[in-house]
Amino acid sequence: MEAAAALFARKGYHGTTVRDIADESGMLSGSLYAHINSKEDLLFEIVDRVADQFLTAVEPIVNSEGRADARLEAAMAAHTRVVAGSIQTATIFLHEWHALDPERRGLIQAKRNRYEALLAEIIDQGVRSGEFRPVDAKFARLLVLSAVNWLYEWYKPDGPLGPDEVAHKFAELILRGLRADA
Amino acid sequence: MEAAAALFARKGYHGTTVRDIADESGMLSGSLYAHINSKEDLLFEIVDRVADQFLTAVEPIVNSEGRADARLEAAMAAHTRVVAGSIQTATIFLHEWHALDPERRGLIQAKRNRYEALLAEIIDQGVRSGEFRPVDAKFARLLVLSAVNWLYEWYKPDGPLGPDEVAHKFAELILRGLRADA
Repeated sequence: MEAAAALFARKGYHGTTVRDIADESGMLSGSLYAHINSKEDLLFEIVDRVADQFLTAVEPIVNSEGRADARLEAAMAAHTRVVAGSIQTATIFLHEWHALDPERRGLIQAKRNRYEALLAEIIDQGVRSGEFRPVDAKFARLLVLSAVNWLYEWYKPDGPLGPDEVAHKFAELILRGLRADA
Repeated sequence: MEAAAALFARKGYHGTTVRDIADESGMLSGSLYAHINSKEDLLFEIVDRVADQFLTAVEPIVNSEGRADARLEAAMAAHTRVVAGSIQTATIFLHEWHALDPERRGLIQAKRNRYEALLAEIIDQGVRSGEFRPVDAKFARLLVLSAVNWLYEWYKPDGPLGPDEVAHKFAELILRGLRADA
């Protein structure tokens, strides 16, 4: 899994062969096939795990009590921690998942939809309670997701800012655009 | 170029062979090599053209007169039009450019830096004139870029919103977070 993730992130799914993965993990291709049925199994495993990481991180925040702004920032921080925790697997989740076959892509799409609905729910709650102004909820959600997804392209885990600080910087800008009392 | 762009966007640079490109354009590999020296030449051509499209679209806006908020929205709309104009080449510019050799990656990095400096300049002008509050300019720029870059992943050119409308939706949210008088 680790060897596959490193290769998929660097060379793309289509640019990686089972032979590459076997070489990277110090196995013969034949031995690797004792553990997996296909290269796509590895891709699905990686993408599905990341999808679950996002859901597990954000679900309790949506269901918790409290102000919408604090919960939206907490969700952004949770998302950022998942991306920052492994830029490699996040890149595969965000970019290479298109390479899955239609059935498995559908399974991941369903998890992505559930995840987006969680973020939408926080924003909706904020609008309903009057804490947020009646924004275009779809674009508010897209703006949040763009900020925390695009991280995979520029964030350096050994840089000066940790994931919570990055999420706070973005949240500060976005929440000011959402709050009714700004 | 078109055949290469379609394949690089779909299968990634590393997943595309010169043979694939020749097949897609109805040529023999040998005939293709009469036109190009290497697969990487095609990647560089595509990425460099998109870099120039971004610069050409945004440079006159930065140098124009007027309020910073209108110019920031105009820059976002110009960027969005480039991405929406060809999701394929935008994807290659944003994702596959890592595959360039260090020297050519350096040339593109220089253009990316110039482009980011243009956006930073609009935000700085807004802060200096008092139109924007003294925000963290780096994160304001990153938020703008995240919104308009992540488009390559979700925007459908045949969908209900044109590029200017999408840019307006994002600008409305982001500018409210930036304005001093909000």
